[in-house]
Amino acid sequence: MSRIIVALDRVDKSIDWYKELISNTQEYVAGYKFGLPFLTRYGIRGFKEISRLINEEKLWIIDFKLADISYVMTKSVEPFVKMGFNAFIAHSFIGRHGSLRELKEYLLENNSKLILIYTMSHQGAIDVLDKSISIIEEVIADIRPWGLVAPATRPEMIKRAKNFLHKNGIEIRILSPGIGYQGAEPGKAIQYGADYEIIGRLITYSPDPILRIKEINCIHEKVVRSG
Amino acid sequence: MSRIIVALDRVDKSIDWYKELISNTQEYVAGYKFGLPFLTRYGIRGFKEISRLINEEKLWIIDFKLADISYVMTKSVEPFVKMGFNAFIAHSFIGRHGSLRELKEYLLENNSKLILIYTMSHQGAIDVLDKSISIIEEVIADIRPWGLVAPATRPEMIKRAKNFLHKNGIEIRILSPGIGYQGAEPGKAIQYGADYEIIGRLITYSPDPILRIKEINCIHEKVVRSG
Repeated sequence: MSRIIVALDRVDKSIDWYKELISNTQEYVAGYKFGLPFLTRYGIRGFKEISRLINEEKLWIIDFKLADISYVMTKSVEPFVKMGFNAFIAHSFIGRHGSLRELKEYLLENNSKLILIYTMSHQGAIDVLDKSISIIEEVIADIRPWGLVAPATRPEMIKRAKNFLHKNGIEIRILSPGIGYQGAEPGKAIQYGADYEIIGRLITYSPDPILRIKEINCIHEKVVRSG
Repeated sequence: MSRIIVALDRVDKSIDWYKELISNTQEYVAGYKFGLPFLTRYGIRGFKEISRLINEEKLWIIDFKLADISYVMTKSVEPFVKMGFNAFIAHSFIGRHGSLRELKEYLLENNSKLILIYTMSHQGAIDVLDKSISIIEEVIADIRPWGLVAPATRPEMIKRAKNFLHKNGIEIRILSPGIGYQGAEPGKAIQYGADYEIIGRLITYSPDPILRIKEINCIHEKVVRSG
């Protein structure tokens, strides 16, 4: 079982290139993640094309970093839920009542997963998200999402998330971005307790994405065996 | 000069209905705001249709509540900047380095406005955003966006924003949502110091949107004259 989620973050390729990439790599990865640039570049039509490849056993993550009132968030995800995408990333920061509580309910009813952000990989996250981490933890403990996003670039925050989940007896998967171009080595986040590594450019810009994926799967297996 | 920004938040109408609404109301309002549901419902094509009506003197606000690393945010707004939309809403809580700082620069270079969220109108905002408000203020004082979003449902937060801006000698406009269906009376936010009221369903569900807009403009003028 792979621990790789491929972040499809290039906007300079065709939808056919994406479809080929997904078809060729699907058996070696845990899932795929699509961001807002994918939507603003390829539109709903692009997502419709991709949705033909959806296989329920994988994670098909829509990462718009939702952070709005519940009405806006549910209306925003509705078309993707209908297309078969099965996991959605939102910010813990937006709070519960009138926001995440209703989104969680909507996603549960529609057989979809909610993934919340614990903190992020960029420098600015240290000034704000990290400083409010205990407030964010309160939201997470209450909402109990399926997954949490914590950055590989600051693995001590993955450790903190693990400890917080353990202390509260909550089972939530940790997904870790920030590998490769943002600085962290593949395997680092897994070593610190993440369940998945979200990897974008390191794979999507590789001349041989399948080989790159297989190499990273090997690294992950080694880390898991030795850990 | 109107202080109304119309939030185009219905997803049950055609693009032609929207185009007619905008053509008929443009001379009576300060601008329009488009959210993520508009994009996921009408796609980039919908925005292209709307962009034909763009008039530089008005505010054409894209409200995706951006909250990501700079690479993702600039890639997300690029197509809209090219179409002529001239203001973009992002979350302050995403922080500066590697995020808002670069977005602000990109928007400045492209003759566009950055609008940051101070806090929001829903209940959940009290538990998280409000508790972190001094951290959010630090970000705002540093980034100096063109505008700030503060909720009409909790007008004391508009007052707090005004005081904070005044104390720091910063001139930033305040845009206030939460009017009508979310609970606040038209004019309330203006009374507390907002420069614009963002109004959605109260106008878009009205049998006579032009009349409704004119009524609200009258309320605003009265508030401004008496204040």
